[in-house]
Amino acid sequence: VKNVTNNLPTNDGSSSNDEVERVVAALAETAKERDVEGGTPVRERNRLRESGLLALTIDRKLGGHGESWGDLLHVVQRFARVDPSIAHVFAFHHLMVETMRLFGSPAQWTRAFEETVRERLFWGNALNPKDTRATLARSARGFVLRGTKSFCSGARDSDRLVVSAIDEETRALLVFVIPTRRAGVETLADWNAFGQRQTDSGTVNFSDVEVDEAEILRSPGPLATPQSSLRPCLSQAILAHVYLGIAEGAFDEARAIQTAQGGSRSSDPYVLLRAGELSIALDAARMFAERARAAIDRSLARGADVDERERGLVALDVARAKVSATQAGLAIAQGMFDFVGPRATHRLLGLDRYWRNLRVHTLHDPVDQKLSELGAFALNDRVPAPSFYS
Amino acid sequence: VKNVTNNLPTNDGSSSNDEVERVVAALAETAKERDVEGGTPVRERNRLRESGLLALTIDRKLGGHGESWGDLLHVVQRFARVDPSIAHVFAFHHLMVETMRLFGSPAQWTRAFEETVRERLFWGNALNPKDTRATLARSARGFVLRGTKSFCSGARDSDRLVVSAIDEETRALLVFVIPTRRAGVETLADWNAFGQRQTDSGTVNFSDVEVDEAEILRSPGPLATPQSSLRPCLSQAILAHVYLGIAEGAFDEARAIQTAQGGSRSSDPYVLLRAGELSIALDAARMFAERARAAIDRSLARGADVDERERGLVALDVARAKVSATQAGLAIAQGMFDFVGPRATHRLLGLDRYWRNLRVHTLHDPVDQKLSELGAFALNDRVPAPSFYS
Amino acid sequence: VKNVTNNLPTNDGSSSNDEVERVVAALAETAKERDVEGGTPVRERNRLRESGLLALTIDRKLGGHGESWGDLLHVVQRFARVDPSIAHVFAFHHLMVETMRLFGSPAQWTRAFEETVRERLFWGNALNPKDTRATLARSARGFVLRGTKSFCSGARDSDRLVVSAIDEETRALLVFVIPTRRAGVETLADWNAFGQRQTDSGTVNFSDVEVDEAEILRSPGPLATPQSSLRPCLSQAILAHVYLGIAEGAFDEARAIQTAQGGSRSSDPYVLLRAGELSIALDAARMFAERARAAIDRSLARGADVDERERGLVALDVARAKVSATQAGLAIAQGMFDFVGPRATHRLLGLDRYWRNLRVHTLHDPVDQKLSELGAFALNDRVPAPSFYS
Amino acid sequence: VKNVTNNLPTNDGSSSNDEVERVVAALAETAKERDVEGGTPVRERNRLRESGLLALTIDRKLGGHGESWGDLLHVVQRFARVDPSIAHVFAFHHLMVETMRLFGSPAQWTRAFEETVRERLFWGNALNPKDTRATLARSARGFVLRGTKSFCSGARDSDRLVVSAIDEETRALLVFVIPTRRAGVETLADWNAFGQRQTDSGTVNFSDVEVDEAEILRSPGPLATPQSSLRPCLSQAILAHVYLGIAEGAFDEARAIQTAQGGSRSSDPYVLLRAGELSIALDAARMFAERARAAIDRSLARGADVDERERGLVALDVARAKVSATQAGLAIAQGMFDFVGPRATHRLLGLDRYWRNLRVHTLHDPVDQKLSELGAFALNDRVPAPSFYS
Repeated sequence: VKNVTNNLPTNDGSSSNDEVERVVAALAETAKERDVEGGTPVRERNRLRESGLLALTIDRKLGGHGESWGDLLHVVQRFARVDPSIAHVFAFHHLMVETMRLFGSPAQWTRAFEETVRERLFWGNALNPKDTRATLARSARGFVLRGTKSFCSGARDSDRLVVSAIDEETRALLVFVIPTRRAGVETLADWNAFGQRQTDSGTVNFSDVEVDEAEILRSPGPLATPQSSLRPCLSQAILAHVYLGIAEGAFDEARAIQTAQGGSRSSDPYVLLRAGELSIALDAARMFAERARAAIDRSLARGADVDERERGLVALDVARAKVSATQAGLAIAQGMFDFVGPRATHRLLGLDRYWRNLRVHTLHDPVDQKLSELGAFALNDRVPAPSFYS
Repeated sequence: VKNVTNNLPTNDGSSSNDEVERVVAALAETAKERDVEGGTPVRERNRLRESGLLALTIDRKLGGHGESWGDLLHVVQRFARVDPSIAHVFAFHHLMVETMRLFGSPAQWTRAFEETVRERLFWGNALNPKDTRATLARSARGFVLRGTKSFCSGARDSDRLVVSAIDEETRALLVFVIPTRRAGVETLADWNAFGQRQTDSGTVNFSDVEVDEAEILRSPGPLATPQSSLRPCLSQAILAHVYLGIAEGAFDEARAIQTAQGGSRSSDPYVLLRAGELSIALDAARMFAERARAAIDRSLARGADVDERERGLVALDVARAKVSATQAGLAIAQGMFDFVGPRATHRLLGLDRYWRNLRVHTLHDPVDQKLSELGAFALNDRVPAPSFYS
Repeated sequence: VKNVTNNLPTNDGSSSNDEVERVVAALAETAKERDVEGGTPVRERNRLRESGLLALTIDRKLGGHGESWGDLLHVVQRFARVDPSIAHVFAFHHLMVETMRLFGSPAQWTRAFEETVRERLFWGNALNPKDTRATLARSARGFVLRGTKSFCSGARDSDRLVVSAIDEETRALLVFVIPTRRAGVETLADWNAFGQRQTDSGTVNFSDVEVDEAEILRSPGPLATPQSSLRPCLSQAILAHVYLGIAEGAFDEARAIQTAQGGSRSSDPYVLLRAGELSIALDAARMFAERARAAIDRSLARGADVDERERGLVALDVARAKVSATQAGLAIAQGMFDFVGPRATHRLLGLDRYWRNLRVHTLHDPVDQKLSELGAFALNDRVPAPSFYS
Repeated sequence: VKNVTNNLPTNDGSSSNDEVERVVAALAETAKERDVEGGTPVRERNRLRESGLLALTIDRKLGGHGESWGDLLHVVQRFARVDPSIAHVFAFHHLMVETMRLFGSPAQWTRAFEETVRERLFWGNALNPKDTRATLARSARGFVLRGTKSFCSGARDSDRLVVSAIDEETRALLVFVIPTRRAGVETLADWNAFGQRQTDSGTVNFSDVEVDEAEILRSPGPLATPQSSLRPCLSQAILAHVYLGIAEGAFDEARAIQTAQGGSRSSDPYVLLRAGELSIALDAARMFAERARAAIDRSLARGADVDERERGLVALDVARAKVSATQAGLAIAQGMFDFVGPRATHRLLGLDRYWRNLRVHTLHDPVDQKLSELGAFALNDRVPAPSFYS
C-alpha cells in the first residue's frame, strides 16, 4: 500500500496504509489468545469491516481504494505476520470479489462492488471445486441449490458467498454469488483444526436454496479465458503471502526472544550457521513473492489481452513464490526453536502456533505438484494448464 | 524384553513383557486427552508402580527383573510410540536408579534398589548440571541444601530424587539421593510446555534441606571413571529412543489414517517418494538405535574394565542414534500430513502432538554438537570427552 | 570372506582372503593411472583369472570356493574402494554365473561352472533388457542371433557372454549363454565415459550368430519364479556395494590427505559438522548394505522355497542399501573437498575420480524409483513387482 | 551491458555488447577441448585483448567503456556459461584494475588505466593474502621483493601484476603493481587442477625484484576505509557470477541434450520434480546475483561516502549471491545427469566439466563461513567485519 492518498472508506479519515498498521497492531494484541479459542473472530471481522480495507482492490470510481493486487498481497503478508487466520479470510474476501470481475460480466460486478463498499460487505468462500456434492437443478424461477461444500473459509459471519455447484442437466461447474443470509444456507461452526483456527474453513449446507440465473457468473465463466484463468494465480499467491508472513513472524519473534535472553547462543557457530540457512531461504521467498506480485499486477493490467503463455508464466512466478514460502516457512517454524532453546517452549508463549498454522495451511494443495510444473517448464518449456490449483 | 520368565513384581503374575503390552494399551487409550490436560499423570504413574516395571533393570537377586539396558530402552521406545511423556519419566526413573550404581558404592545402591523393589518407588530427577543455583553448605549433621533446580523431569509425585548441587566449600559438583518428601523439598507444578506435557519437567526448590554424608554418591562420584561416564550415554540413549518411538508412532498413525481414507493419495508418485524418503530415514534411525543398545549392554557388562576409548565409542554409537532419530522424527512429524491431507488436521485427532512432543524434547541439547563429535571421530579419530551431555 | 580354508583355485596356495588383499593392493597401485587411460584392463583381468577369485561363489564340489553372495559383495566393496571399474566387472562376472543357476537347469549350470573353474573363465554381460535390438530367429540348427546390445559391461576380453534377445516368433525375451569367441560376435571398444572407465560397458554386435537350443536358459527362465527373480536383487546389490566402496575410498583418502596437511581445518567447527553429516550417512549405508547381504544369503539359501513376499522384502532391503549408498556416496565424493581444500584439486591426485565414477555408475537406473517402492511398502505394505531393475 | 553506444576499443567498430556475444561464441567453440588441454589460453587471452573488453569498467574519459561493475559481472556470467576459466581471468583482470582505484591514489590509477586502454594490457593476480611467503625489504632504490605467491590466477601471459607482500620492517601487508616482465618475476606453468584448468592459478616466484615506492598502493591502502573494503565484495561477487554462469551452462546443456534425445524422461514425474527443485534454486541464485550487482553499483557510486554499515550490507548481498550460486550450481552440475541419462556420460560430450570446474572454484573460501555471517546478521543485526574474504 504505497502512495495511498484517498481516505474514503476508513473509519477516521486517515489513509489505508495507516489503517493497515492499526489493524495489525490490534490483531497482534489478541492473536495468541484467539489461537487457543478458535471459533469465528467476529470482533476482528467487524474491525475489518469498519477499516474500509475490504474495499482495498475495488476501483476508486466505485468507491474503493483502487489498490493493486500486489499491494493487497503485501497487506496480507503483514497481517499474516501476526494473525494468519485473519490474513487468510481477509485475502479470500478479496479473491471472492475478484472472482466476480474475472468470471462475471461488468454489469454483475459493478453492482456488487458498489454494494460491497456501501454496505461494508464481507465475502466468504463456498467454491471448493474438489467437493462435488453441491448441485443446481432447474426450477421455475431459475435454479435450486442443494448439497454441501467443505473447506469454506470465511463463510461464517459473511455477507456474500461465492459458490460452485454442478449443473445437474449439463454437468458443468457453475459459479455464482448469493447472499449468505438467503433461506436454506447454513454455515456450520465445525472448523476445528490444530492451526489456522479462526479461518472458519468448515462446512456450508444448502437446502433448496433459490439461485437466480442473474447470479451465475457466465461471462466468461470459470477458467474460460486466459484472463479468467488468472484467478487460481491469485488464490495461490494469497497462500504464498500468508505462508511468507507466518515465516517472517516466526523469525522475528525468535530473534526477539533470543536477544532478550542474551547468553551464548547468539555467538554459537552452529546457531549462526542454521540462522544463516534459514534467513537466506526466507530472503529468497521474499524475492519470489515480490516477483509474483509484479507479474500479477502486470497481467491483470493487460485485461483480456493476456494470452495463455503469459498466464502460464504468471502461474509459474506464483508457483515459485509458493514453493519457496512453504519450504522456508516450515524450516523456520521448526528451526526457530534452536535459537530460543527449551525455555521458550512454554505454552503461554505460544511459539508452536507458527508451525501449527503453517502446517495446516500448506496442506491446501501439494507443493510437489508445483515443483513438477516448474520442472516441466525448465526442461520442456511447457507452462501449466489452468486449473483451480495451477 | 525378550525371554522374560520371572514374574515377580508384576501385578497379576504374568511376565514383564505382557505387562509392557498392557501398559502400552492403557496409555494409548488416554494419551491424546492427557496431552491436552498436561499436569502430573498420577494415575499412569501409579499404574507403572503397580506394574513392577520400575524394577526392570534392578538385579534379580535384589528382587528386580534383571533386564538389560538394551531391553529397557526398547520398552521406552514402545511406550514413546503412544505416550512419550510417560516414556520419558519411566526412562528417567531408571536413569536415576542407574546413577546410584555408576556414581555410588555397592552398599549405597544395594539398599536403595531393595527399597525400590519393596516399596515400588518412583525416582525423579533434580540433577540438571547446567543449573548451578543449588548449593550444599556444611552443617553439624552433614549438609544443608539450598536453592533451585530447573527441568526436573518426573520430580513431582516421585519418591526419591537424585540431586546435584555445588559444594560451597570445594565448588565441586556433588550428586546425592534424598526422599522427595523430606522437609524443605518443594516440587512445583510449573511445567507447561507445548509438548511433552506430562513430564513434569519443572522446578524443584530446596529450603534448608538436610542431606546426610551417606546420601552423597562419592565412590566413584560423577563422571569420575570411564564406567561412571557411561551415565550420559544412558541419558542420551533414552532421548534417542523416545524420539524414535515418537517417529514410529507418527508414521504408524499416518499410515492407518491414510489407509482408512482410501483415495488416490496412496498411489500418488510424490506421496510415495516422500514416504520412501521418510521410511528409509526411520529405518536408519532404528538400526542406529539397535547398535547403540548393543554397545551399551556390552560396555555396562564390562563394568570397571571399560576404558576411555571404549566409553567414547559407546558415546558415538549413541550420538548416531540420537542424531538420526532427531532428524527422521522431525521430518516424519512434519511430513506425515502430506500422507493424510487437510482433513486429518482436526484438533480431536491430535496429530500435531507428535511434532509438539518431539520439537520440545529435541531441544534437550544441540544435535549439531553431536554431529561435530561424529565429525571429529571420522576425521581425526578422536572420541568425545565425557560430559553430562556427551 | 571369513573362515576361508580351502586354497584350491588360488595362484600360490594361500587362502582366498589373503588373495583378495593382494589383488586390492595390486589394483590400488595403478588405479589412478588406469582411470586416465580407460580401455580394457587386460592385465588386471588376467590377474583376476589367476587369482581363482572368479570361482568365489561356485560350489566347492564343482571346484569353487563356495563363498556366499554376502561374502562376495563384501569383496566387491573392498575392490571398489580402490578400483570400482574392476569391482564392477568382477561382480558382474559372478552375476552372469549366478544367472545360469537362477534361470537355467542344474545340467546347464553344473557343466558351465566346472568349465569356469577349470579354464578360469571370465564371464561378460550382454543382457541389457532395455535394449531390444537383438533378436533370435529360428534356423535349421536352432537359432540365429542378430542385432546389437549396449551397455555390455565386461564383454570385451570375456570368455562367455550371457545374452538376452527377443524371440522373433514368440516375442518372448530369451536369455542364453554363448562363448564370446563364437563367429559373428563382435565386442566393440567404444566405452569412453568420464567415469567407470575400465568397465568396457560398450556395444556388442551380433551378425548371424548361431545359438543352440541347449544354450537357452528356460528352466525356469528369466524372472519366472520368485527364486529366479532374486537375480535383480543381486545386480542391484552389486551396484550398492560398488557405490559404497567408492564412498569409503573417497572418505578414507580425504581423511588421509587432511591429516597429512595438518593445519586448522581439522578443528574448524563447520568442517567437523559436515564431516559428521557425511560420516553418519556413510555409516547408515554400511548398515543397510550389511542387512542386504544377510537378506540375500538367507533367501538364496531358501532356494525354490522363497515366495513372492520374501523376495519382495529382499528387494526392499537391497533398495535401502542402494538408495543410501547413492546418496551418501555422492555427498561424500563432492563434500570430501571441503576437508582437503583447494590444494588437493591437483590433477595428479585424481580425487575427482570418486565423483566421476560414482556419478556415471549411479545412472544405471533411477534411485527415485527405489524410493517410490520403499514408500509403497511403508504406506501400503506392497512389495515391488519383480523386473530387471526391482 | 545495456545501451552501450561507444565503440572505441573494439576490433571492428561494433558495440561492446555485440563483441561480448562474439567472444562468447568463439570461446564456446573450443572450451571443451581446452578443458582437456589445460595450460595458458594465449589465443583466447589475445582475443580478449583485441576485443577491447579489458577496458570495460575503465572510465570513458580515460578511453574505456565506462560500464558499471554490475554490467561487468553480467558479462562474466555470460562468459562462464561456456568457459568459466576465461570468465575468471577476465573478471580478475578487472578486479586488479579496480584494486588500483580502491587502494591507490588518483594519480596512480589514472595513469595505469590510460596505459591499460592504450596498450590493451591484461592484468594478473599475485595478491593471495593467505600466502605470506613474499616479503619486501627496504633498499637504496625503494624495495626488494622476494619470495613466492600461490594461486595467482591469470598471472601467466599477463602484462601487469597486483602483488601483496609483507613489509619486513613494519610487518604490514603492502599491495603494489608491477609489470609482469620485470626482472626477477617468474610465473610458473604449474596449475594443473581437475577443474578451471585454464585459469593459470599457479605459482609466481620473485627473485630480488625491484619495487618502487610509487608502485605501492598506500592511499588509502588495502581495506583501509569502507570504500576500499568494497574490494572483497567485488572479488566474492566475481566468484558468485562465475558459479552462476557454470550452473546456467550446465542446465542449458542438459536440457538441450534431453530434448534432442526425446523419450520418456521428459514426462517422468521424478525427473520433473528434480528439474523443478534445481530450477527454483537456480532462479533464486539469479535473483540474489541481480540484487548483489545493484548493491555493488550503488555503493561504488557513493565513493568515499560509503560507511561501514552500508559496506557490510553489500557484503551480505554478495554473500547471499555466492551461497545460493554455490549450492544451486553444485546441485545442478550433479543432478543434470538425471535428465540426460547414462548415454550422456560419454567423455567427448565433456558434461563432467561443469562439476569439475565448479567444485574446484567453490573451494576458494568456505561457504559455511558466509552462512554464519548471514546468520549473525539475521539474529544479531551484525554486519561482517571486512577482510580479504568477507
